[in-house]
Amino acid sequence: MSNETRLLPGDTIGILGGGQLGRMMSLAAASLGLKTHIFCPDPNSPAFDVATAYTIAPYEDVSALDVFASSCAAVTYEFENVPGPTASHLAARVPVRPGVRALEVSQDRLFEKEFLRSAGVDIADFVTVDSNDDLTAALGRFEGSGVLKTRRFGYDGKGQVMIRSAADAQGALEKIGSVPAVLERLIPFDREVSVIVARDVNGHCEAYDISENHHEHHILKTSTVPANVSEATAEKARAMAISIASSLEYVGVMGVEMFLSGTGSDETLLINEIAPRVHNSGHWTEDACLTSQFEQHMRAVAGWQLGSGARHSDVVMENLIGDECERWPSILAEPNARLHLYGKEEARPGRKMGHVNRISPKG
Amino acid sequence: MSNETRLLPGDTIGILGGGQLGRMMSLAAASLGLKTHIFCPDPNSPAFDVATAYTIAPYEDVSALDVFASSCAAVTYEFENVPGPTASHLAARVPVRPGVRALEVSQDRLFEKEFLRSAGVDIADFVTVDSNDDLTAALGRFEGSGVLKTRRFGYDGKGQVMIRSAADAQGALEKIGSVPAVLERLIPFDREVSVIVARDVNGHCEAYDISENHHEHHILKTSTVPANVSEATAEKARAMAISIASSLEYVGVMGVEMFLSGTGSDETLLINEIAPRVHNSGHWTEDACLTSQFEQHMRAVAGWQLGSGARHSDVVMENLIGDECERWPSILAEPNARLHLYGKEEARPGRKMGHVNRISPKG
Repeated sequence: MSNETRLLPGDTIGILGGGQLGRMMSLAAASLGLKTHIFCPDPNSPAFDVATAYTIAPYEDVSALDVFASSCAAVTYEFENVPGPTASHLAARVPVRPGVRALEVSQDRLFEKEFLRSAGVDIADFVTVDSNDDLTAALGRFEGSGVLKTRRFGYDGKGQVMIRSAADAQGALEKIGSVPAVLERLIPFDREVSVIVARDVNGHCEAYDISENHHEHHILKTSTVPANVSEATAEKARAMAISIASSLEYVGVMGVEMFLSGTGSDETLLINEIAPRVHNSGHWTEDACLTSQFEQHMRAVAGWQLGSGARHSDVVMENLIGDECERWPSILAEPNARLHLYGKEEARPGRKMGHVNRISPKG
Repeated sequence: MSNETRLLPGDTIGILGGGQLGRMMSLAAASLGLKTHIFCPDPNSPAFDVATAYTIAPYEDVSALDVFASSCAAVTYEFENVPGPTASHLAARVPVRPGVRALEVSQDRLFEKEFLRSAGVDIADFVTVDSNDDLTAALGRFEGSGVLKTRRFGYDGKGQVMIRSAADAQGALEKIGSVPAVLERLIPFDREVSVIVARDVNGHCEAYDISENHHEHHILKTSTVPANVSEATAEKARAMAISIASSLEYVGVMGVEMFLSGTGSDETLLINEIAPRVHNSGHWTEDACLTSQFEQHMRAVAGWQLGSGARHSDVVMENLIGDECERWPSILAEPNARLHLYGKEEARPGRKMGHVNRISPKG
C-alpha cells in the first residue's frame, strides 16, 4: 500500500498487540480524534479497555486479519515479534507502519547487526554461531569471552548466556535451546542509555533527549533524563538514532538502546539493539515533553507531521513491577509524581504493572 | 452510600453523559488504571470509543440504571442537568460524586444564587420572577435594566434576555418560555474569569490558577492563563472557589465562573455561576499542569488523594467550534500547540469539536 497515505481524524489505526504499549498508543490516538482497533489473541488485553474496537484471534488467523485490515486506515504494532506472514498479509491490504523491513531487521539479531553495521553506526563485534564448533571458534576470536544470544525471540535478558570462561562455554548453546545464535564481544560498558527517535512519512526525524537506564533482574527499572553524559555524547546518541531511522526509511517511533563506556571526553557509545516500536525507556516523555512518544508514534503512523519532542522538565521514570504496583497510594501522595497504571488484573512477579514519572524543574 | 468509599485500581467509574467531557474523563481514568462505564442515550457518543463499557438508554430507564449501578464502584456525570430522580436512584445504590446536593443547587439558578449568598461569596443582586408583574417590580428595583434568566436548563447564552429598556422588557418573559426565572442586576463587568477547583472526600481542596475567558456568540472561545489580574484578585478568586466547594461539601472538580470589573486595586469579583463538573475553561490544565482537571476529578470521584494543580507553563486554550476543526493540519505544524480532537463525526455550526492548548514557558 502507498507510503503516502495520510489519515483523517475519525480514521482507525489498527494495533497488533494489546498490552500496555498498545493501551498507551490508544490513549494518545484518542486525544487526536483517531480511533483504534486492537488485534490480540489474549482475551484479557489491557488495551481493549480504551480501544474503539478489538479482535481476539491468533495472529495467524487470515480471515480475522482480513476483517481487521478492512476496518483500519493504517496498522502498527506494539511488539517486534509480529510473525512475518502476518505483517506481509496486512501490508498487502493497508499501510503497515513501521514497515515489514523494520520487523525483519529487528526480529533477527544477525540481520539487525548486519543492518546496523551497514548504517555506519558503532556496534559490538559479533560472530554467527550455529554450532558448538562455531562457538569455539568465535570464543577464540574474542579472547574466550562473550555474550551468546539467540538470533530470535530474546527479550528482558531471556535467550542469552554470559560466557567468561571455558566452564561457562560448556553447554551454553544448549542452554539457549541450540538455536541459531550470535556471539557478541564482551563490552566493558559502564552504563546503558537509549534514545527514542521518531520519523515521519516525509523523512523528518525528531529525537528525544538521551536517557540513562538502570536494569534490575534484566528488566528496566528506571530511566533518568537528563542522563549524566557529556553534551557531545548526548548529541552523538541522537544523531546515531536519527541515522538508523533514516537508513531504514522508518516510519514511527523506535527505541535505540546503547552501551556507554568511559566518562567525559572518553565516552564511547555502541548500539546494543533497536526496537521498532514505542519503548519502555521512553515512558518519561509522557510527562516531561510537549509530545509523548505515544502521540509521536500515532502521528507518524497516521502520516501526520511530528510534534515537538522538546523536554520541559527533568524526570526519573520508575517501572512498577509485580506487586510494586501496590505502592500506588503513596505515589499519589507524592507532589511531583505522575502515576500510570496499566489496568492489568494479576500482579505476577516480573510483570510490568505501571510506571511513575517523577518530575522536577529543568535543571 | 458511604461517602468514605475508596476505589481500587481496576474498579469502574460510571459516567452519565458521553460527550467530550466524559471522553476526557475516561482517558484520565485509564491512565490511573481505572475503568469507565458510560451511560448515555446518544448512540454516537464520542466517549464510547475510550470506555471499557457503555450503555445506550434514556436517563429515566430504571432497569438500565440498576445494571449500570451494579457495574460501578462510583458514579459521576459530565453535565449538570442530570434528572434529579436519576441521580437519587443511583445515589441509593452507589456513591455519586459530586453528590445530589451539588446537582440540585446548580440545576436551579434561584437555588444556586441562594446557596452562593449563604456561602458568603459576592454575587450580582437578583430577584425571583414568576410573572410579568414580578418582572415589572424587579426592573423597578434595578433601575429598569437587568438580565432575565430561566431558573433551569440555560447554557451557552440560551434561556436569557438582556433588558436595557422598557421595550426590551416587553415580552421578555415570553421569549424565555414563560418559565420561572430570575432577574439579575446588570453588572458593568469588563471581563469573565473562572477558577477550576477540586475537593477530595477528606475536604482537601486544590484550586487551579484563574483563567481569563473570552466568549464568541455566547460560546467559550479562549481561556488564557495567567489571567491579566492582580495577585490579590487571583488569590481571592481561588479562595472564593475553595469556599464554595467547601460549603457544598463537594467531591470532585467544579468550574466557578466569575465577572471581573475594574483594574488593579479596584478589581472586583462577582460569582456568576458554578458548574458541578469538569469545565471547558479548565481544558488548559491538560497541557500546562502536572495534574489535569480530568485526572483531578477522577481521583476525587475514586476517593483518592488529589494531585498537584501546579502550573508549569503559560497557556492559551482555544476551542475549535464547528468547521474550525478542519484547521487540524496547520495546528499540528505549530511547534507549541497541543491538539485535542473529540472524535465527533459531524462538525455542525456551534458544536465543540476539539480544542488546542498553545503552551509557552512560564513568564
